[in-house]
Amino acid sequence: MMKKLIECIPNFSEGRSADTLRRLAGEAEKIPGVTLLDYCADESHNRSVFTLVGGPEGISEAAFRLCKLASEKIDMNHHAGEHPRMGATDVIPFVPLGGASIEECVEISRQVAQKIAAELKIPCFLYEESAQAEERRNLAAIRKGQFEGMPEKLLLPQWAPDFGERAIHPTAGVTAVGARKPLVAFNVNLDTSDINIANAIAKAIRASSGGYRCCKAIGVMLAERNVAQVSINMTDYETTPLYRVFEAIRFEAKRWGVSITGSEIIGLTPSKALIDCASYYLKLEGFDYGRQALENHLLG
Amino acid sequence: MMKKLIECIPNFSEGRSADTLRRLAGEAEKIPGVTLLDYCADESHNRSVFTLVGGPEGISEAAFRLCKLASEKIDMNHHAGEHPRMGATDVIPFVPLGGASIEECVEISRQVAQKIAAELKIPCFLYEESAQAEERRNLAAIRKGQFEGMPEKLLLPQWAPDFGERAIHPTAGVTAVGARKPLVAFNVNLDTSDINIANAIAKAIRASSGGYRCCKAIGVMLAERNVAQVSINMTDYETTPLYRVFEAIRFEAKRWGVSITGSEIIGLTPSKALIDCASYYLKLEGFDYGRQALENHLLG
Repeated sequence: MMKKLIECIPNFSEGRSADTLRRLAGEAEKIPGVTLLDYCADESHNRSVFTLVGGPEGISEAAFRLCKLASEKIDMNHHAGEHPRMGATDVIPFVPLGGASIEECVEISRQVAQKIAAELKIPCFLYEESAQAEERRNLAAIRKGQFEGMPEKLLLPQWAPDFGERAIHPTAGVTAVGARKPLVAFNVNLDTSDINIANAIAKAIRASSGGYRCCKAIGVMLAERNVAQVSINMTDYETTPLYRVFEAIRFEAKRWGVSITGSEIIGLTPSKALIDCASYYLKLEGFDYGRQALENHLLG
Repeated sequence: MMKKLIECIPNFSEGRSADTLRRLAGEAEKIPGVTLLDYCADESHNRSVFTLVGGPEGISEAAFRLCKLASEKIDMNHHAGEHPRMGATDVIPFVPLGGASIEECVEISRQVAQKIAAELKIPCFLYEESAQAEERRNLAAIRKGQFEGMPEKLLLPQWAPDFGERAIHPTAGVTAVGARKPLVAFNVNLDTSDINIANAIAKAIRASSGGYRCCKAIGVMLAERNVAQVSINMTDYETTPLYRVFEAIRFEAKRWGVSITGSEIIGLTPSKALIDCASYYLKLEGFDYGRQALENHLLG
């Protein structure tokens, strides 16, 4: 039996103060049963992203304690950066890994949001899979207006927070908490320098313009290589597998006499996202990832 | 940093006595830092295979203690079964998983073999990667003559054991200990019922007849499906990747107008064996399994 493992990726509105980042990392490392896999900060965004993994209890505790520390260390009244943001802890997503379900992550997100609102007096919105209304699924819609616009936004009839008062925390603002599936960042390079072709292919494959449901995509230019790239976020690799999007790019590209020269995974991916592709290309029959991938027995 | 994990798959000459199997499993489960992943017994072979995982110290201790218990419970003078065998503990392979190297497994195999010979008075041969002479790499060559022929064989000039005396243990016989890479059992089904085609393809791809170096293969008939299959053991999936053999089968099969209908992995496989295939088919650039596969961070 696999342990329940949950990933939490809190985003903080601090990307410049090494001291604050160190304190947040130190706090994360103190929590029993939780591992800080990675944290990275972007100075121009003035934002940092922490990646934590742990069981249900530990990960909930970690999310709360980091949010508390961030509320003590970060004053949004003095925050400037390129990335849109509305709170000291801007967003806290929970992601199910081996053994845990998305439903369990939704439940955890609700409990954490409730505790943050009750004890820290930071109003919280639930987003993505945790959203209690369709128009709150999309984080960008919740965050619109940013920290500066939130005092007014919270008073609008449709924008009462899911937990907490209709007033921002004076320095820590507002936080969004939610559950989502693991995201895989997957880029595909074309043998063309025509960005219009990458854009047209991106449009053909992404959900928003009629493509695959769990695929977000844009065309980008890799200036240093003079290569047009389809840059993709796979938001649920089990519902829309990577190979399906890859093969769709291949046949869309043919229309322009263009082919795929390579692809890349950015950052971390669950092994299963790639093993599902191997299963397709090798025509594997009846492969049971949970039972047959050796590593799953080592995580038990 | 990944923990050093080593797999040990001792084979015992007992596949019928539920009591002995339970005792061996119970002994394995008592050893701190070692996990018994699986054990299975075959009655007609009168043989059982245990799969253990642990760190270097625990796994060495487990191998020795199971070998000791087997020498107390199994009398080879009364053993009969279809599978060739020469000892109560017939063979003990050590396999490097995440974080451990084949060299470390060779070292462990030597220490364990030495201890078995010294303390249990069971002579040991080192085989595969641990072999000290080329003709001892192949387990079948060492085991030839089986339990009954070992007393004479040990007296031949070239068959002194690597550790221990030139005389079998009176009831436990002789044991082979060694290190090898993880093995992947991979079968490929053809859209033909002609076993000759599967045999010809197997011959074309296997090392022994000029094919890929780390590939063993035979043709077999799946009687219940009336399908000819190429049944493969990949003995080092990092040196000879699965996709390469799969594509070779595809082009060899074309010669007879035959194609691949499916494939299967039998038992466990390291995830990387399949992820390497996904990397090939998706043309992944610079994918770093150790750093980018999420699970590797969870094993740390």
